[in-house]
Amino acid sequence: MKILVLNGPNLNLLGTREPDKYGNQTLQDIENYLREEAKKTDIEIDFYQSNIEGELVNKIQQAKGIYDGIVMNPAAYTHTSVAIRDAILAVSIPTVEIHLSNIHTREDFRKISLTAPACIGQITGFGANSYKLGLTALTDYLRNN
Amino acid sequence: MKILVLNGPNLNLLGTREPDKYGNQTLQDIENYLREEAKKTDIEIDFYQSNIEGELVNKIQQAKGIYDGIVMNPAAYTHTSVAIRDAILAVSIPTVEIHLSNIHTREDFRKISLTAPACIGQITGFGANSYKLGLTALTDYLRNN
Amino acid sequence: MKILVLNGPNLNLLGTREPDKYGNQTLQDIENYLREEAKKTDIEIDFYQSNIEGELVNKIQQAKGIYDGIVMNPAAYTHTSVAIRDAILAVSIPTVEIHLSNIHTREDFRKISLTAPACIGQITGFGANSYKLGLTALTDYLRNN
Amino acid sequence: MKILVLNGPNLNLLGTREPDKYGNQTLQDIENYLREEAKKTDIEIDFYQSNIEGELVNKIQQAKGIYDGIVMNPAAYTHTSVAIRDAILAVSIPTVEIHLSNIHTREDFRKISLTAPACIGQITGFGANSYKLGLTALTDYLRNN
Amino acid sequence: MKILVLNGPNLNLLGTREPDKYGNQTLQDIENYLREEAKKTDIEIDFYQSNIEGELVNKIQQAKGIYDGIVMNPAAYTHTSVAIRDAILAVSIPTVEIHLSNIHTREDFRKISLTAPACIGQITGFGANSYKLGLTALTDYLRNN
Amino acid sequence: MKILVLNGPNLNLLGTREPDKYGNQTLQDIENYLREEAKKTDIEIDFYQSNIEGELVNKIQQAKGIYDGIVMNPAAYTHTSVAIRDAILAVSIPTVEIHLSNIHTREDFRKISLTAPACIGQITGFGANSYKLGLTALTDYLRNN
Amino acid sequence: MKILVLNGPNLNLLGTREPDKYGNQTLQDIENYLREEAKKTDIEIDFYQSNIEGELVNKIQQAKGIYDGIVMNPAAYTHTSVAIRDAILAVSIPTVEIHLSNIHTREDFRKISLTAPACIGQITGFGANSYKLGLTALTDYLRNN
Amino acid sequence: MKILVLNGPNLNLLGTREPDKYGNQTLQDIENYLREEAKKTDIEIDFYQSNIEGELVNKIQQAKGIYDGIVMNPAAYTHTSVAIRDAILAVSIPTVEIHLSNIHTREDFRKISLTAPACIGQITGFGANSYKLGLTALTDYLRNN
Amino acid sequence: MKILVLNGPNLNLLGTREPDKYGNQTLQDIENYLREEAKKTDIEIDFYQSNIEGELVNKIQQAKGIYDGIVMNPAAYTHTSVAIRDAILAVSIPTVEIHLSNIHTREDFRKISLTAPACIGQITGFGANSYKLGLTALTDYLRNN
Amino acid sequence: MKILVLNGPNLNLLGTREPDKYGNQTLQDIENYLREEAKKTDIEIDFYQSNIEGELVNKIQQAKGIYDGIVMNPAAYTHTSVAIRDAILAVSIPTVEIHLSNIHTREDFRKISLTAPACIGQITGFGANSYKLGLTALTDYLRNN
Amino acid sequence: MKILVLNGPNLNLLGTREPDKYGNQTLQDIENYLREEAKKTDIEIDFYQSNIEGELVNKIQQAKGIYDGIVMNPAAYTHTSVAIRDAILAVSIPTVEIHLSNIHTREDFRKISLTAPACIGQITGFGANSYKLGLTALTDYLRNN
Amino acid sequence: MKILVLNGPNLNLLGTREPDKYGNQTLQDIENYLREEAKKTDIEIDFYQSNIEGELVNKIQQAKGIYDGIVMNPAAYTHTSVAIRDAILAVSIPTVEIHLSNIHTREDFRKISLTAPACIGQITGFGANSYKLGLTALTDYLRNN
Repeated sequence: MKILVLNGPNLNLLGTREPDKYGNQTLQDIENYLREEAKKTDIEIDFYQSNIEGELVNKIQQAKGIYDGIVMNPAAYTHTSVAIRDAILAVSIPTVEIHLSNIHTREDFRKISLTAPACIGQITGFGANSYKLGLTALTDYLRNN
Repeated sequence: MKILVLNGPNLNLLGTREPDKYGNQTLQDIENYLREEAKKTDIEIDFYQSNIEGELVNKIQQAKGIYDGIVMNPAAYTHTSVAIRDAILAVSIPTVEIHLSNIHTREDFRKISLTAPACIGQITGFGANSYKLGLTALTDYLRNN
Repeated sequence: MKILVLNGPNLNLLGTREPDKYGNQTLQDIENYLREEAKKTDIEIDFYQSNIEGELVNKIQQAKGIYDGIVMNPAAYTHTSVAIRDAILAVSIPTVEIHLSNIHTREDFRKISLTAPACIGQITGFGANSYKLGLTALTDYLRNN
Repeated sequence: MKILVLNGPNLNLLGTREPDKYGNQTLQDIENYLREEAKKTDIEIDFYQSNIEGELVNKIQQAKGIYDGIVMNPAAYTHTSVAIRDAILAVSIPTVEIHLSNIHTREDFRKISLTAPACIGQITGFGANSYKLGLTALTDYLRNN
Repeated sequence: MKILVLNGPNLNLLGTREPDKYGNQTLQDIENYLREEAKKTDIEIDFYQSNIEGELVNKIQQAKGIYDGIVMNPAAYTHTSVAIRDAILAVSIPTVEIHLSNIHTREDFRKISLTAPACIGQITGFGANSYKLGLTALTDYLRNN
Repeated sequence: MKILVLNGPNLNLLGTREPDKYGNQTLQDIENYLREEAKKTDIEIDFYQSNIEGELVNKIQQAKGIYDGIVMNPAAYTHTSVAIRDAILAVSIPTVEIHLSNIHTREDFRKISLTAPACIGQITGFGANSYKLGLTALTDYLRNN
Repeated sequence: MKILVLNGPNLNLLGTREPDKYGNQTLQDIENYLREEAKKTDIEIDFYQSNIEGELVNKIQQAKGIYDGIVMNPAAYTHTSVAIRDAILAVSIPTVEIHLSNIHTREDFRKISLTAPACIGQITGFGANSYKLGLTALTDYLRNN
Repeated sequence: MKILVLNGPNLNLLGTREPDKYGNQTLQDIENYLREEAKKTDIEIDFYQSNIEGELVNKIQQAKGIYDGIVMNPAAYTHTSVAIRDAILAVSIPTVEIHLSNIHTREDFRKISLTAPACIGQITGFGANSYKLGLTALTDYLRNN
Repeated sequence: MKILVLNGPNLNLLGTREPDKYGNQTLQDIENYLREEAKKTDIEIDFYQSNIEGELVNKIQQAKGIYDGIVMNPAAYTHTSVAIRDAILAVSIPTVEIHLSNIHTREDFRKISLTAPACIGQITGFGANSYKLGLTALTDYLRNN
Repeated sequence: MKILVLNGPNLNLLGTREPDKYGNQTLQDIENYLREEAKKTDIEIDFYQSNIEGELVNKIQQAKGIYDGIVMNPAAYTHTSVAIRDAILAVSIPTVEIHLSNIHTREDFRKISLTAPACIGQITGFGANSYKLGLTALTDYLRNN
Repeated sequence: MKILVLNGPNLNLLGTREPDKYGNQTLQDIENYLREEAKKTDIEIDFYQSNIEGELVNKIQQAKGIYDGIVMNPAAYTHTSVAIRDAILAVSIPTVEIHLSNIHTREDFRKISLTAPACIGQITGFGANSYKLGLTALTDYLRNN
Repeated sequence: MKILVLNGPNLNLLGTREPDKYGNQTLQDIENYLREEAKKTDIEIDFYQSNIEGELVNKIQQAKGIYDGIVMNPAAYTHTSVAIRDAILAVSIPTVEIHLSNIHTREDFRKISLTAPACIGQITGFGANSYKLGLTALTDYLRNN
């Protein structure tokens, strides 16, 4: 089983960016940890991050035929990108949306997700652990569908 | 570690209620399965379901000092209950909100959660598996905080 | 044919409550009259009233397998209860929603019905007669479907 | 007792128009059936249909002094006609608004009725039977007021 | 003169619940203090608290003929309960609505009161003292009307 | 100088229609009075009333080259007719919009005028006298432009 | 008969202020002309202008017992002053609201009048002539009521 | 192949009506030109224009069985007519909606089309050429479906 | 203890202004009564009323260092004055907002208070008694903080 | 005549992406077909597709001086890109906006076009044929302006 | 060159008013500093502050012919004063709007400026330095226009 | 002191793009002029422009540790980019937002800035001079903080 972990804008700054809101772990830490976890159950994961909306769209399109599923943290593009939503619908790869912080406790514009309706489900608020939960949710889903 | 699994209105009908939307498992099936899972990591869980908003509030209040955390599926009350929100804030027990279906793909009024801002986070869309993911998210949280 | 007539909050005060808006008949008067009417066409009816939203949900759930249809006056819960809506959808019992007063001539928040979309139809504005019309509408429906 | 049954735009196409939504009966079928029903209780009914908003207004105005009440299915004009609302208020003839389909389950703009606040009440969702229910509601009302 | 002091959901947790927002006094403290105050002017008071919306409705209905007035803190139900509003209108007992915190400084959904339009007036923001002020306001009103 | 006085739906019922809101004068009374007034200053006026939106549009179109100006009471169509607005813009005949009642004191939907932005100005609230004021406003305008 | 002509903020600049929108006549010109017109029918008029909302309120209060009616151009305060609205309601002097420009063709916030619901009616869009029309409307009203 | 070209209110004034917005061609010019174009590909077209909403509904109803498709410029009724929308849905004749001006650059209320969701598609902004494009779009569609 | 009682626009007309809504007592009556009440507990009060928003701002600013608290009835300015709100925040003098009528039962724009969020709390609906309740609320507050 | 055909995000997946919504033709098929059509009338066309908003902006800027017009399908960026709108306004190249599906029948957020007001017009709903219609509309426009 | 520096309500309290939000400098400090700065480039400045909206309108009107430009901090009136907006438009004196705090980070009602559309531009968020920047912006503008 | 001047989409077209709205100076002109100005006070500036949202995010991220502050004209992305907002918050570099035109006088969607709340302040409306004012505002800020 091969999973793409897709990361949106500014997530490359994790660990240094507003640590009280997003935690101290870097994206590399999360990648390492997730890779360890994934190995235990024979899952292969690839990490990708971009600040450019269209590159995320490109990556989703290229995922077709290569990856069984996507764990996606669209970050800021969650709330503004119809293009990412359309890309997921276009490739029909099972996708789980995750967020580090609980979007329901933040600014109003962050409560609206344009991308979630194209996903299986959404996990929000568990810090770096949202990634591991997202991976579990996705692989459980893939095994049962 | 002792966890309360709280279930809102109509969840007692799971398995028979609109199975294409909510799946075939009964609440008892979920309870059994979750209890099995919980045992593996020495977690004790109690299940509670009520159709009455105020009884859910009562249960949350009584959880204080007994349970370390709550996994809660407020169902229909997610969207209408300020009282449940206030109860969670009042007892300050770490709570994870879960939903069987992906609320972002349903009626507009189901996209607004009055209770989520009082919780650590929210997991939505993974069917019965949302319970297991919620339990994991909660126990991970309790171990790290 | 067995019909449940379900009554929401404050309807037990009928006859004494704002008689210019809701008429002089008590709920008992309506029950007696309706029972008489029902007898003529061999319909059995049960009356139930509760001020507690969750008890109305309970009653709807228990109606499954016992009643062929429900005539429901959700009163104040018409405008606030997703739980009653979900209960009707969950049990799939044909239900007719009725109101004593014409909700289109009252406060704006009374024009929105959260429960009506789960029902066959809605009858509003004919005072105590709305009950008889609702019963007729329901039994006509049951005979033809 | 003399009743006008007033029908708005496109109702002349009943039976052929989207039968899964509006049923198979033609307006003529409904008229025949209703006339039969009416005869039993010595009520005389006239049927009128027009696609033109102003002609419906004309008909309502002319009804004054001739008809004791109106059963009205304003169809599409329900949601856009202040003129029909004003006409009913102007002539003060007791009027019952009916709809074939349950307007609460359709597009949002069909949930708003500009005409219902000028009527005694509204009956919506019972197919062709809404006409019979409307006639009963109206004649019951006329006998008691 | 006999007054009912009615308390909505989570008020039983007063003193332990978010003390910086709601103060340190328990509901029992308030009851004791209020009883003392009331005695001085020969007023008899009864305290009632429930987390269940419908039980509050029941209590208001039963107040008819027993109590001269109601001091009510509907807490979370202030913003969601049409049923409590209807109950007050139905029994026509003079009622004063009070709040511990200043609802105008909190979340937007707490600024809307569904129950206040059914009351004489509203007192908001004076902590436990809101109860005493409410009692005074009510008894002054009863003596002059 | 030749002026068309255009009257929208239900104005033919003036005098009998809700007299406390619209006064006791019939449209014929207003026409007679206005004709008298007009004669004094050598103005010729024609009266036209229709309940059909499109006939009012037709009349406005035909006014081109015949009338110097229009005094228009679009009644219910004020709030719903883009077609009348477009007709006035199309023929470019100076038009004054009048209303019998003060639209600012009525239902919210009556405060919005779709037709007024196509007119010179609007006079609202002076009963039958609004017609005379409208005629004066229009003829003053025509003499100065 | 004695009439107060009340003018709101910036109307003292008439003639120099955006002449394409408000015309070339100064407020003094309008006063002179209006005084001439008024004399013909034995009406006495006083002119008052202030840029200060509260002074306009003061003037309205002092008008009680001195003036039979008010012609008021509240200018910018039309859209923001609850105080002027309340003042007119408090003194109960018949008042006609006028505007130079057609407020229906301007910015959206100028279409809402907070003051008009407290007046008999409103005249908008006829330039300086709105004053004369307002005076006529008011005196006609006073003679008939 | 037989096509109905349906024209809404005020389109009979084309050529004289605000030529900078709608161009200099009359509706007759468009008809002549379109007829020429149609002849080349053996398409027969009929032109119809009415200012009366209900007559347009009548025409759409009568088109059933006679015309293969409709090119419709509903003009002002685009934004206010549920009746025309329902008529198209009722007869199920493929329809293309066209507009002379680009509705996206005009008043906000002109951006909402009530009729377009009942059509195959919409062409807006190309002046008289919108008719030819609409005809091409429709005939292409009819040949392929 | 020294308290400023601040009164907004039109309150000088109390007693004569819409007595059914605001009662028969004049502002002088209230002042006399309040002064009597205050004397009993050694509180000194000053009364101030102005119709001018900015003068109320001035008075609040000058209150600094002279008064221990303010009882304020901002009347119409409650709903439109950011300046008064800012003044209270700027001087940081404990302030209680009061209203004679129950603002929750009036026009929608009167339900929004721009000034209340800058106050300790708000008392609304008890007629002239709101002043006494406000004074009590304020002095209780000052003694305990 | 040289035309740029600009394609927004996910259009490179045409043919495989939700074929029931977008048809079976690939973007290459459309390009081939369009090139054939264009050749017949001596028009040269270039195709460009990008998933990156800013690259589309770049392409529009570079089009200046090279292309006579643009046929643009902005896809998802239609609803979110002010930058593309500004680019078209900046280069002033005549542009026609097209869409494969009828945007009026889809999600509400797809009904708003930020880019259409910068274009000559919009063609929506004719599948791959929208491209040919757009090309015709554009070249007709270029020949006449 | 002569510049008026106009200050709205509560700015006279600068230095003592919420210093963490508005800084420690008094308005006199700002005036002194600005006067020093202005002297260097031969600009004469006058300072004016009022808490009364209409006095600010008066001052703007009187500025005509005396001042070359205005630097204005309308404070609370920014969000509520149509009268100040109209005054600036009426006198046509180039005006720069400034704010001490960044209005985009504060309450929602402070993000709307009614006065800014009448100004050249707006400078917000630089504390007392906003005045100097405003003066520079204005004098640069005056020298180039 | 080292400052980054960041420019959003279409600003590379300055001088040729709608010169009446944005002026005649090219971005190179502004850069040259700003560099001259900066030299005088020993400030080093770098200019960067991109049409791609994500590249602007990249640049902001890379600015960390290199630049002391940012002057940013996000152009079209002001109103749509949560990603740029998050980037500024993530790197915590003091940033001043500037606009050439006065955004308060343009389309409604241009009045909302998603990026300004992450900045020190905003300067809007002074044409190319906004850059110099922004630079001054930023360097003043950096010297005092």
